Amino acid sequence: MKIVDVVVRDIRFPTSLEKDGSDALNQGDYSAAYVVLQTDSDLEGHGLTFTNGRGNEVVVAAVRALEHHVVGREFDDIVADMRAFYRVLTVDNQLRWLGPEKGILHMATGALLNAVWDLWARREGKPIWKHLVDLSPETLVSTIDFSYITDVLTPERAIELLDAAREGREAREVEMRADGYPAYTTSTGWLGYPEDKVRRLCREAVADGWTAFKMKVGRDSEDNASRAAIMREEIGSERKLMMDANQCWDVNEAISHMKALSRFDPWWIEEPTSPDDILGHARIATEIAPIAVATGEVCQNRVMFKQLLQADAIRYVQVDACRMGGLNEVLAVVLMARIFDKPVCPHAGGVGLCEYVQHLSIFDYICVSGTLEDRMCEYVDHLHEHFVEPCVIKDARYAVPLTPGYSIELKSTSLAEFEFPQGRIWRDLSA
Amino acid sequence: MKIVDVVVRDIRFPTSLEKDGSDALNQGDYSAAYVVLQTDSDLEGHGLTFTNGRGNEVVVAAVRALEHHVVGREFDDIVADMRAFYRVLTVDNQLRWLGPEKGILHMATGALLNAVWDLWARREGKPIWKHLVDLSPETLVSTIDFSYITDVLTPERAIELLDAAREGREAREVEMRADGYPAYTTSTGWLGYPEDKVRRLCREAVADGWTAFKMKVGRDSEDNASRAAIMREEIGSERKLMMDANQCWDVNEAISHMKALSRFDPWWIEEPTSPDDILGHARIATEIAPIAVATGEVCQNRVMFKQLLQADAIRYVQVDACRMGGLNEVLAVVLMARIFDKPVCPHAGGVGLCEYVQHLSIFDYICVSGTLEDRMCEYVDHLHEHFVEPCVIKDARYAVPLTPGYSIELKSTSLAEFEFPQGRIWRDLSA
Repeated sequence: MKIVDVVVRDIRFPTSLEKDGSDALNQGDYSAAYVVLQTDSDLEGHGLTFTNGRGNEVVVAAVRALEHHVVGREFDDIVADMRAFYRVLTVDNQLRWLGPEKGILHMATGALLNAVWDLWARREGKPIWKHLVDLSPETLVSTIDFSYITDVLTPERAIELLDAAREGREAREVEMRADGYPAYTTSTGWLGYPEDKVRRLCREAVADGWTAFKMKVGRDSEDNASRAAIMREEIGSERKLMMDANQCWDVNEAISHMKALSRFDPWWIEEPTSPDDILGHARIATEIAPIAVATGEVCQNRVMFKQLLQADAIRYVQVDACRMGGLNEVLAVVLMARIFDKPVCPHAGGVGLCEYVQHLSIFDYICVSGTLEDRMCEYVDHLHEHFVEPCVIKDARYAVPLTPGYSIELKSTSLAEFEFPQGRIWRDLSA
Repeated sequence: MKIVDVVVRDIRFPTSLEKDGSDALNQGDYSAAYVVLQTDSDLEGHGLTFTNGRGNEVVVAAVRALEHHVVGREFDDIVADMRAFYRVLTVDNQLRWLGPEKGILHMATGALLNAVWDLWARREGKPIWKHLVDLSPETLVSTIDFSYITDVLTPERAIELLDAAREGREAREVEMRADGYPAYTTSTGWLGYPEDKVRRLCREAVADGWTAFKMKVGRDSEDNASRAAIMREEIGSERKLMMDANQCWDVNEAISHMKALSRFDPWWIEEPTSPDDILGHARIATEIAPIAVATGEVCQNRVMFKQLLQADAIRYVQVDACRMGGLNEVLAVVLMARIFDKPVCPHAGGVGLCEYVQHLSIFDYICVSGTLEDRMCEYVDHLHEHFVEPCVIKDARYAVPLTPGYSIELKSTSLAEFEFPQGRIWRDLSA
C-alpha cells in the first residue's frame, strides 16, 4: 500500500456566534486542518488538528510544506519505523527552524501523524486504543522519539513500564468494554454564558449523572466568585468543581486569585498562567496547595511536559491529542507521567478532541497507569454530530469505541458545508 | 500617516549549495519573509523574519493572517501605544491558539513589528539604536508587554534600570560612534567545511584582527576534537574559542561531550540541547562549569528567557532579533538580563540578522548594561551585499549605523532576483 496523495482542507464551524467555547482569552470559530491520506488501496487515513478559526489556513499551508515527506511512501516502510518517520517530519533540516517541534508546524505534523496512525489501525481492523493494546511493548516503544527526554525516559525504561503493567490488562480491557472511561463536563461553565444558562446546564448535567464540572475563570475576581457560587449551589459540595483560567493571569495574580477562590473548594486550577512558564507553575503549585495545578492543552511538546513533571509544577497532565507531534509524542508523555505518578486527564472539546482522547485514556488505563484513581477525561458537548463515528457518553463515561481507526473522520456532508470559505455556511454568513 | 498596505514576499538565497551555515541540524537556504509597510506618505517600513528555506511560504501566510490588524491603521495611533499594538497581534482571540507567542506565528509577528519600528525610526530620521536612546525611559517601557514576566520585571523596575544607567550615557554614545561594538566571527567553523578551508579562514580571520571564533560541534566526538584542535592551532590559546552544538545532544550527552572537549578551553557551549529544556540547560551548566552555557537564537519568547535566567541555566543571552515578537519583546529580555547580570550576546548571521542586532547591542551598552565586559555580538560574513545599508565591520567591531531605520531594507534588485520561486536565481536552478 502506497500513499498517493495528501488532501488537506480548511474546515471551520461558526461557534463564536453562540459563545460556545468562550473563555478568558479565546472566542473561536472551532476549526480543523483536516488531512486525508489517500492510498492505492481502498483504505484512507484521516487526521486533523484543531484550531480556533482565523489562521487555520496557515496550518493547512504547513501541512502542504510537509506533504513531500509523505506522498509516494510505502505504508509498510513508514510503520516499520515510526520513530524515523517522526524525525523525517520534525528534523527536516530546513523546516525545523520554524519550530522546532512547536506551534503551527508541530500542529501540522500532528495532523499528518494521526492520519498515519488512523490508517494503521484501519488496516489492522481495530480502533486505535485496541491497536495500541495489541502492539508489543517493543513495537510500541519503537514509535517514540526519545530525543531530549532520555534524562527521564529511555526506551529500556519505557518497556519496563509497559511490562510492569502487564498484570491485569485483560481484566481492565473487559472492564473498559463494559463500563467505559470516566469523564467530566466543561459544557456548563463557559465565560460568555449568562447566569440562567449556567444554572440550567448544571441542573441538566447533574440529572444526567455528571459528578465533575469545570468552570471558566477570568481577570474579574468578583465575577469569578459569583459564578463559582452559582456552580457550587447547583452541583453541591460533594461533586468536583474544576476551574480553568486559560492563561489569563501572571504568576502572582494566579496565586492571589486562587487563594480568594479556595473557599469554593476547587479540585484543580487549569492553565493559571503562560503555558511556557514551568517555574511559574511550580511556584503557583507550592503556594496554593492543596488546590492542584493542571495544564497541558497548549503544552507544545514532550520536552515541556518533561520539565513540568521534573519541577513538580503540575498534578494533572492534560495532554492534547493533536497539538503535539501526534500519537507518537503523546505516548512519550503518558509514559513520563507514569514515572512521576501523575494522572493523565486529557484535554478535549474543540473539534474532534473528544473523539481522539477517549482512545488515549482507555489505552493509558489498560496498559500504563492501571488505575482510574483521580483520572477523568474531559467532555464537551458540541460538534459531535459532524463525525462518522462520534464518541458516545453513557452515565458520564466514554463508551469504548469499537470501529477501526482513530474516530476522527468527518462526514462528507459536513466537510462540504463547513469548508472555509466556500462551504454553504460561510457563503451564507458572508452574504 | 496611515498604513495602506502590507506587502510580504518570499525571498530565498540558495546557500545550501555551498554548505554555508551548515551545522549539526541545519543545512539551509537562508531566507526571509520580507515585509514592507506602505503608507500614504513617502515613507515605508521594512522588516523581515529569517528562515532556513522550505516553509518560508508558511511564514508569509502567517503575516497575511495578521495583516488585517495593521492595514488601515493610523501610524500615530500605533506608536502612541505599542504595548496595545503588540497585544492586538499576539492576543487575537482566534489566532492566539496557534502559538501563543511562539513558532511561525510569532516569527510573522516579529517581521511586522520590526517593520513598524523601522518606520518609526525613519520618521524620526534616526537609526533604531539612536531612536531607542532618545526615547524617554517611560516611553520605551510603555512599548513592552509585561504579561507573564511581572514576577521578575515590572514597568516600574524597568524604568529604574534605565534611570540607573543614565550616568555616562553620552560618553558611551561617543565611544560607540568612535570605536563600534565588539564582534566575534562564526564564518570560520561551519560543520560542512573541509579542514583546509577551516585553516585558511582562521588564518585570514586572525590577520583581520578577530579575537573570538565560533566553531560548530556535532554528535561525532572524534570529529569534534580534531576540528577543535585545528581551530586552537590556528587561533592560539589567547583568543576565545566558542562551540555551538545547535541542539544536537540530549542532556547527558551534552555533559559528556563537553567534559571531553574541555581541554580545548571553550569559552561557551551554545545550544547544547533542546532550546525548550530550561532545566536541562541548568543541569548542564552546573555539571560543565567553568565552561559557560549560552542559548537563545531559538528561544521562543520572553517567558522562556525569564526562566533561563531564573534557573541560572545560561550565562550568555543570545537573543535573536526576529524570532520573538519584534523589538518590543527583545527590550524585555535585555532588561531581564540586566537584572540577572548576564551579558546579552545576540545571535546573528542568516539573512539580515547582523544588520538587525548591531542596533540592539549598541543600545544595550549605552542605555542598559553600561559595560562591554564579556560582551560580543555575533558576525557572519555572508549575504550583506543584498542590503541597502549593510553592516560594516572595522577592526572586528560593528561600526555604528548612521542611516535612519533598522538597516534591514533589501535591494530591489536582490528582491527581484531571489524571490521564490519566480526570481531569476530559482528559475535557473530549477531549469
